[in-house]
Amino acid sequence: MKVDVALVHYPVVNRIGETIGSAVTNLDLHDIARAGKTYGVGSYWVVTPFEEQLQLAAQIVGHWTEGYGGSVNPDRGSALSIIRLCATLAEALEQATVDHGVRPLVLATCAKRQANSRSYGDVRELIRSEVPLLLLFGTAWGLSPEVMDMVDGVLPPICGPTPFNHLSVRSAASIVLDRLLGRPECWEFEQ
Amino acid sequence: MKVDVALVHYPVVNRIGETIGSAVTNLDLHDIARAGKTYGVGSYWVVTPFEEQLQLAAQIVGHWTEGYGGSVNPDRGSALSIIRLCATLAEALEQATVDHGVRPLVLATCAKRQANSRSYGDVRELIRSEVPLLLLFGTAWGLSPEVMDMVDGVLPPICGPTPFNHLSVRSAASIVLDRLLGRPECWEFEQ
Repeated sequence: MKVDVALVHYPVVNRIGETIGSAVTNLDLHDIARAGKTYGVGSYWVVTPFEEQLQLAAQIVGHWTEGYGGSVNPDRGSALSIIRLCATLAEALEQATVDHGVRPLVLATCAKRQANSRSYGDVRELIRSEVPLLLLFGTAWGLSPEVMDMVDGVLPPICGPTPFNHLSVRSAASIVLDRLLGRPECWEFEQ
Repeated sequence: MKVDVALVHYPVVNRIGETIGSAVTNLDLHDIARAGKTYGVGSYWVVTPFEEQLQLAAQIVGHWTEGYGGSVNPDRGSALSIIRLCATLAEALEQATVDHGVRPLVLATCAKRQANSRSYGDVRELIRSEVPLLLLFGTAWGLSPEVMDMVDGVLPPICGPTPFNHLSVRSAASIVLDRLLGRPECWEFEQ
């Protein structure tokens, strides 16, 4: 499997649909890195064009991968070691192309259904066929239209038995990774 | 469906297995309430015996359900409205028994496989049959042995294709709710 994820802090939209840049948060780094490590994600790209945000993210990651945090909690260091920082999505895509020797298929996630949906079943098949994937998650109110326009497909929105669909990006990323990379045989008694 | 969840801050264990009380965190309240609301959870019990932690949790919840937060972001208020605070797990169980008119089946979650496992498939069936459930999630390094001894069953640990199993409680709760209450038909194109 060749699955990478990117958490996009710019360009995303705010609640009234304007394009903004959002702030990096500590728990987005930790939770998505831990879920990524669990499900075998190769790289977890944290995308922000703001130099100070990149420095903050690098300090947090360094604390756990090289500093005191990792010496106390090596599992956390192991999780955060999949984080790679970059200024733009184009940069992440370029580097992922170098990593895999081929441009990955870029799939967005969105709380609203899009025309170019790819089902979870289809994407599981692509992963099984070793097609490299880059899964995009948007912070704030989600990925901006310019990002949605450049992707190869969009996963269906996560829905439960209610019309409420305001999951945190941490929850959404965890659920998407479980749906795409989870082992259904582990749902039962035997492993 | 009659599914409640409880996030337990005491008694839980620390990394060396000692029983401790952990701190309430803002994002545990938000993320699990948002996932709970998405998947139709009735009550999200936040369990802590520490009076100041209960006050902190009440202030956070109040900000979103009655205060300024909810006026700006009503969806967040709607999510946090499922939170109920209590000092002990016994209290949550007693109140859930009153709510449902019958003692709910109490199921723990754990990162290690336990003898009294109930498969996700079986538990989905129970939910479909309207059996009231109380799902327990532990903070810190997980629920203490005394809690594990009193439950009716334990869900299998969440595993991906790697041996790493150190998800955040926010990720674990989101994934468990999706597995138990998600609508697989939404994974595909049609809703």
